Amino acid sequence: MNRILLFGAGKSTAYLIKYLLDHRRSLNIALTIADLNPDRIQNELRDPQEITFVKLDIFREEERKNIIKKHDLIISMLPAHLHMNIATDCLSFGKNLVTASYVSKEMEKLDREVQEKGLLFLNEVGLDPGIDHMSAMDVIDRIRKEGGNMILFESFTGGLVAPESDNNLWNYKFTWNPRNVVIAGQGGAAKFIQEGKYKYIPYHKLFRRTEFIDVPGYGRFEVYANRDSLKYRNAYGLSDVLTLYRGTMRRVGFSKAWNIFVQLGLTDDSFILENSEQMSYRDFINTFLPYSPSDSVELKLRHYMKIDQDDILWDKLVELDLFNPKKFIEITNATPAMALQKILEEHWTLSEDDKDMIVMYHKFGYESEGKRKQIDAHMVVTGEDRKFTAMAKTVGLPVAIAASNILKGEIQSKGVRIPIEKDIYAPILKELIPYGVEFTEREIPYMGYNPENVIG
Amino acid sequence: MNRILLFGAGKSTAYLIKYLLDHRRSLNIALTIADLNPDRIQNELRDPQEITFVKLDIFREEERKNIIKKHDLIISMLPAHLHMNIATDCLSFGKNLVTASYVSKEMEKLDREVQEKGLLFLNEVGLDPGIDHMSAMDVIDRIRKEGGNMILFESFTGGLVAPESDNNLWNYKFTWNPRNVVIAGQGGAAKFIQEGKYKYIPYHKLFRRTEFIDVPGYGRFEVYANRDSLKYRNAYGLSDVLTLYRGTMRRVGFSKAWNIFVQLGLTDDSFILENSEQMSYRDFINTFLPYSPSDSVELKLRHYMKIDQDDILWDKLVELDLFNPKKFIEITNATPAMALQKILEEHWTLSEDDKDMIVMYHKFGYESEGKRKQIDAHMVVTGEDRKFTAMAKTVGLPVAIAASNILKGEIQSKGVRIPIEKDIYAPILKELIPYGVEFTEREIPYMGYNPENVIG
Repeated sequence: MNRILLFGAGKSTAYLIKYLLDHRRSLNIALTIADLNPDRIQNELRDPQEITFVKLDIFREEERKNIIKKHDLIISMLPAHLHMNIATDCLSFGKNLVTASYVSKEMEKLDREVQEKGLLFLNEVGLDPGIDHMSAMDVIDRIRKEGGNMILFESFTGGLVAPESDNNLWNYKFTWNPRNVVIAGQGGAAKFIQEGKYKYIPYHKLFRRTEFIDVPGYGRFEVYANRDSLKYRNAYGLSDVLTLYRGTMRRVGFSKAWNIFVQLGLTDDSFILENSEQMSYRDFINTFLPYSPSDSVELKLRHYMKIDQDDILWDKLVELDLFNPKKFIEITNATPAMALQKILEEHWTLSEDDKDMIVMYHKFGYESEGKRKQIDAHMVVTGEDRKFTAMAKTVGLPVAIAASNILKGEIQSKGVRIPIEKDIYAPILKELIPYGVEFTEREIPYMGYNPENVIG
Repeated sequence: MNRILLFGAGKSTAYLIKYLLDHRRSLNIALTIADLNPDRIQNELRDPQEITFVKLDIFREEERKNIIKKHDLIISMLPAHLHMNIATDCLSFGKNLVTASYVSKEMEKLDREVQEKGLLFLNEVGLDPGIDHMSAMDVIDRIRKEGGNMILFESFTGGLVAPESDNNLWNYKFTWNPRNVVIAGQGGAAKFIQEGKYKYIPYHKLFRRTEFIDVPGYGRFEVYANRDSLKYRNAYGLSDVLTLYRGTMRRVGFSKAWNIFVQLGLTDDSFILENSEQMSYRDFINTFLPYSPSDSVELKLRHYMKIDQDDILWDKLVELDLFNPKKFIEITNATPAMALQKILEEHWTLSEDDKDMIVMYHKFGYESEGKRKQIDAHMVVTGEDRKFTAMAKTVGLPVAIAASNILKGEIQSKGVRIPIEKDIYAPILKELIPYGVEFTEREIPYMGYNPENVIG
C-alpha cells in the first residue's frame, strides 16, 4: 500500500484529490487528508469514503510527527510558511515531500541532508511556479539538444476569468488569493533584461509599463513585469541570454485602471487607516484626495488622475461602487490594501457557475546554424465551475502526478528540487495532456525584444 | 569651572563652538571636544588654543566613560544612533546631556531614571527639531494664556540656498546631509489632518501635492508634506485641532522636477544597480526607461514623463548632465539613490562663498471670544559662508544656549525632554534674537485650510 498524506485541502486541491482517488487502484494508494477542519472538506468531496480524514493542528508537534511517520509520501498544500515543520519531520522519518510552493531559504538549506538520505523534496510543482518551469525547460532542452543557443526567454502567466463568465468592465475576477492580487508588484522595483540592458520599473510605474500579447484564438492580453525576472536565470541555464522577462497577464485595460489604485495609494499595506471600521467607501477614496470644502470626491479624483469624461476607466471605478457613502469598510485597523480587497471581493468573486481561465505564454529565441529563430508556446485551460477551476487543475494535477511518479520510483533526482530536470518534468507534462493541459507551439520569425517592430 | 564635553564637531558646530568660546569667561567654561579626527577640526577653528581636543572612538567604552566622568555637561552632535552609549554613561555618572536629535525609543525609556537622578537630557534643541518646537510653543502658549483655543497649526521649514548664491535652475543646493534630501519622504505615506479629515499621500505623489506659501520679503515657496505631521499632536496639546500639517519648503518648481526622479525610480534606495561602477550617467537614466533599438534616451524620457518641448523642467535635467555618456557613477554596488546623490553633489554643493538660507513658517489658527483668528509667524536666517551657515547657526546656537542655561541652573525641568516647556524655550528664543534668529508675527484673517479660498 502507498500511503499518501495530504496536508491542507483548500480550494486548489479538488483535482489533486480526484486524481489520487481515480488512481487509487492502479497505484495502490491509501489517502489521508490532515486539515484543521476536515469535516468541511469531507462534505464537499465526491468520494469521501475512500479517504481517511484527520483533524490536525500543524503546530501540535507530536500529532504531526506521528501521522507523518505512518505514511510513505507527504504532500503539503498548506501556505508556504508552514512547510518547514513538515519538511523537518519528513527528513527525520525518511519521507518524500511534494509542494507547489517556492523553495524557501530554509528549505534550500536541507538540500544536502535530503540527498544524503536518498530523499526527494519536490517543490514548485504547481502552475506558477510549476508548469511554467516544466513547459519552459521542455522547449529549452529540446532547442539545446538540437544545437541551438538560447538568446531570449519571455514568459507570461495569468489567472483570469473565462470569456463566457466575463461580465464586468475589468474583465477580471479573483481566481486565487485576492490579497496577493492587491499587493502584487510591491516590495521593490521590477527587474529584467532586454537586449542585454538591465531594466528596472518602480512599483508606481509597473502598471503603466505593460506590453500587449496576442494569444491565438483568445485575442489580446496585456502583461506587467514580475518583481524578479532573473530569479531562474541560472537554474534554466540562461545566464547569457540577451532578453529575460517574466510577467503577469491581464485583459487589456485592467492595468491602466488598476494604476489609479496604485497612484491614489489604495494598495498600500504598510499603515493603518485612522478609524477604518466606520469609514465609508467614499471616505476611503476621499482620504487619499486633497481637502476641499466644496468639490465632490468624484471631480477631485477625475482631476487628480486626469480622467477624461469619456474614459471607460471611470466606469470601472463606478462599477466597484467606490463612491458609495453608505457602504462601510467594517474592518478594524485596516490597511488601505485590506479595505480595497474588501471592496473588490464584493465584485470580483467567482459565482457558482463561473469558469476561470489560465493562460500561459512563452517566447523562446535562439540561434541555430547561424540563424536567429523563435518558438512561441501557449497554453489555455478553462475551468468547469467555481470548485473545479482551471487554477485547481493546473496547480493540483502536476502535484498529484509528481507524487504518483515518485511512488512508482520513476524519478531519479534526489534532494530539494524544482521540476526543471527532464526525468521529473517530461512524464508530468505528458500525463497532463489528456486533461487538456497542453501547450501549442509555433515557429515565428525572430524579432528579439522589439515591441514596436522598429528596424534599428 | 563648568566643564563642557562636546562629542563630534562636524559641519553644524561652527556657531556652537564659537558661542561657548565667546562665553567662556562669563560662564567660566572649559571646553573639551572629543572626535575621531580632532586635528581636522583644530585646524579649522579660530581659537583652537582655548579648547582641549581629544581623539576618541565612541565605541571604546573605557575611554568614553573616563572622559564623560570628568565633565559637568555633555553635548552630543554625533549622528543620532550614537547617542545611546553616551546617554547611558551620563546616567551612570550623573551628567546632564544636550542633543539636537530626535528622541529615540531607547532614549525615551531612560526618562524615569533620568528624572530620579535629578538630571536633564534635553534633545531636539536644534533647528528642526528644535526652533520649530520652541517658536511654535511660544505662540501656542500665548494664545492659550489669552483664552484662545487652537484649531489649526501648520509649520514649514526649508534649508535652502540664499537668493544671492542661487545660481542654478533648481534654486537649490545641499545645506545638510545630501542623502537625507535624496531619500526624503520615503518609508510610508505622508499623514496629516485638514479640517478634521485625515489625509494620506503616497511617496510617489508627494512631490505633486505641494502647496504654495508666500514669505513676506522673500517671495513664493512651495511645501511638500512631512511623513508624520501628527507626531507632536499630543506633545503640543493639539489633539483636537482641525488642521495639523507639517512640511518641507523648496523654491517653486523644485518638487515638480524632483518628481521626475521619483517617477523614474532614481531615488530608490532598496536595491543595488547591476554594474553600477561602470554605469555612465546616461546608462543610469536609460536603465529606468523602456528598451528601444533606436530611440534616444532623451526622447524616451520626454515621452515617458510627458515633458513638453518648452518645459523648463527639461533644462533642469540637462543642467545636471544626466545624459552624459562619459561621466560614470564610479560607486560599487550603488543603489539608485546613491548614484543620484553623486550626480547631484556635483552641482548642488555650496561653493566657498555661497550663503545658505533657513526659512521657517508657522500658521496658528484659533478661536477666541467666539471669533476665529490666525497668526502667521516666519523666520529667515541667511548664512555667512560655507562654514558659518544659517544651518550651523540655527542648529548650533540653541544647543549652545541650552547647555549654558543648564549650567547656570536656569532650567527646572528634569528627565528626557524636548524644548516645549516655557522654562526651557523662552530664554533660548530670547537669546537667539541678537543673532538674527527671530520670528516676525502678523495677524491675518482666519481662512482655515482653504488653499483656493473657496467659499463653501
